[in-house]
Amino acid sequence: MTDARGQVSQPPARHPAVVLLSGGLDSTTCLAWALGQGFVCHTLAVDYGQRHRVELEAARRVAAALGVSDHREVRVDLRVLGGSSLTSEEAVPKRRDATALTTGIPSTYVPARNTIFLGVALGFAETLGSSDLVAGMNVLDYSGYPDCRPEFVRAFESLAALATRAGVEGARFQVHTPLMALDKAGIVRLGLSLGVDYSLTHSCYDPSPAGLACGHCDSCQLRAKGFREAGSPDPTRYAC
Amino acid sequence: MTDARGQVSQPPARHPAVVLLSGGLDSTTCLAWALGQGFVCHTLAVDYGQRHRVELEAARRVAAALGVSDHREVRVDLRVLGGSSLTSEEAVPKRRDATALTTGIPSTYVPARNTIFLGVALGFAETLGSSDLVAGMNVLDYSGYPDCRPEFVRAFESLAALATRAGVEGARFQVHTPLMALDKAGIVRLGLSLGVDYSLTHSCYDPSPAGLACGHCDSCQLRAKGFREAGSPDPTRYAC
Repeated sequence: MTDARGQVSQPPARHPAVVLLSGGLDSTTCLAWALGQGFVCHTLAVDYGQRHRVELEAARRVAAALGVSDHREVRVDLRVLGGSSLTSEEAVPKRRDATALTTGIPSTYVPARNTIFLGVALGFAETLGSSDLVAGMNVLDYSGYPDCRPEFVRAFESLAALATRAGVEGARFQVHTPLMALDKAGIVRLGLSLGVDYSLTHSCYDPSPAGLACGHCDSCQLRAKGFREAGSPDPTRYAC
Repeated sequence: MTDARGQVSQPPARHPAVVLLSGGLDSTTCLAWALGQGFVCHTLAVDYGQRHRVELEAARRVAAALGVSDHREVRVDLRVLGGSSLTSEEAVPKRRDATALTTGIPSTYVPARNTIFLGVALGFAETLGSSDLVAGMNVLDYSGYPDCRPEFVRAFESLAALATRAGVEGARFQVHTPLMALDKAGIVRLGLSLGVDYSLTHSCYDPSPAGLACGHCDSCQLRAKGFREAGSPDPTRYAC
């Protein structure tokens, strides 16, 4: 490995990290980022009873394509609790305008989802002796989700230090959120610069039985806008 | 309802609360306490792949006996992660002496368990419009578990305010831990004063196939000590 001045440099330390991987555009970009940072990545997908279960297959596909040898899937059946259009029969909102997309908290909000996901990731990290978590929260395109804000992430880090054996022994957990300040176009540009093949990923909240994207839910609209603004062809397979 | 001076008083407010109910001695006492406080209790048991799955039946039994009309069971398969003798084939420690029981972190520690459990309870509370959680942590007899300490509970409350739609809208979540400063004998006395029938509960980490208590794991030893020091007959059914 050579640095910018052509001199030989050391590769980054090979610490283990747990990467939350939904199989979507954001988390896939995070995984590519974490691999680029030199982390030994262990990926975690959560089967929470989401209506877009096809994303679990995408997560497996992405993990395999990016050479992750330890991909785990944990079931947390949040349908038992309801409270979200992603875990119930309630219709997913469609064709919302740009203002609605970035203001208010939509019905696709899943109560306490990121607290639960980071909790499971924390448990996984502790079994690995890792104190690094990587997650795809970003505030710009999902300002409606309270558990995507930096203050939530910092509070979780504080909790993690108190919640764990490793914390008691001095570990300081860090939740890396490399997408936090990027918009969707920025995320696409970052992923492309890291060689991500976005045709492997799935973002749609309401896919067809064959797994094709609806093109109209919030997630589809934000994803399409990202490719458009990044000036990159959209590899998504749409149902119509 | 009359107060201590014989005057008619108002019953306490009937707010909903989510009570984490494992079916053991501690959480059953918590449920009785919460009902006594006037909360409308919604109970939550977590099937996390624990070897003592019989406690899930105890939780259902206790919820029914105490008149809870909304008892939910959420599966979070932590066997996928391992890292604990409660979720793997590793042997559960037996016949440890009193010092060992209250110092160090035992192999029965499940990484991030209370973070995950409280996370699921938080999601449940939010779907109910509740900002009250009730959980059975206590520091005295389980000093080994980092996620049973008051500082952990306070940090979770801070996180909850940032993690949720309700928090954004001004709710302040409270995690009630009525057992925090009690030893096991104190917990037994509290429960008996509230009319708890402890024969319904299950505490053993390593029960026989018929669900009888082993009598020698940490949980059995602490439970037996509680009844002994409270001067109350132990209703536990032991395998030997």
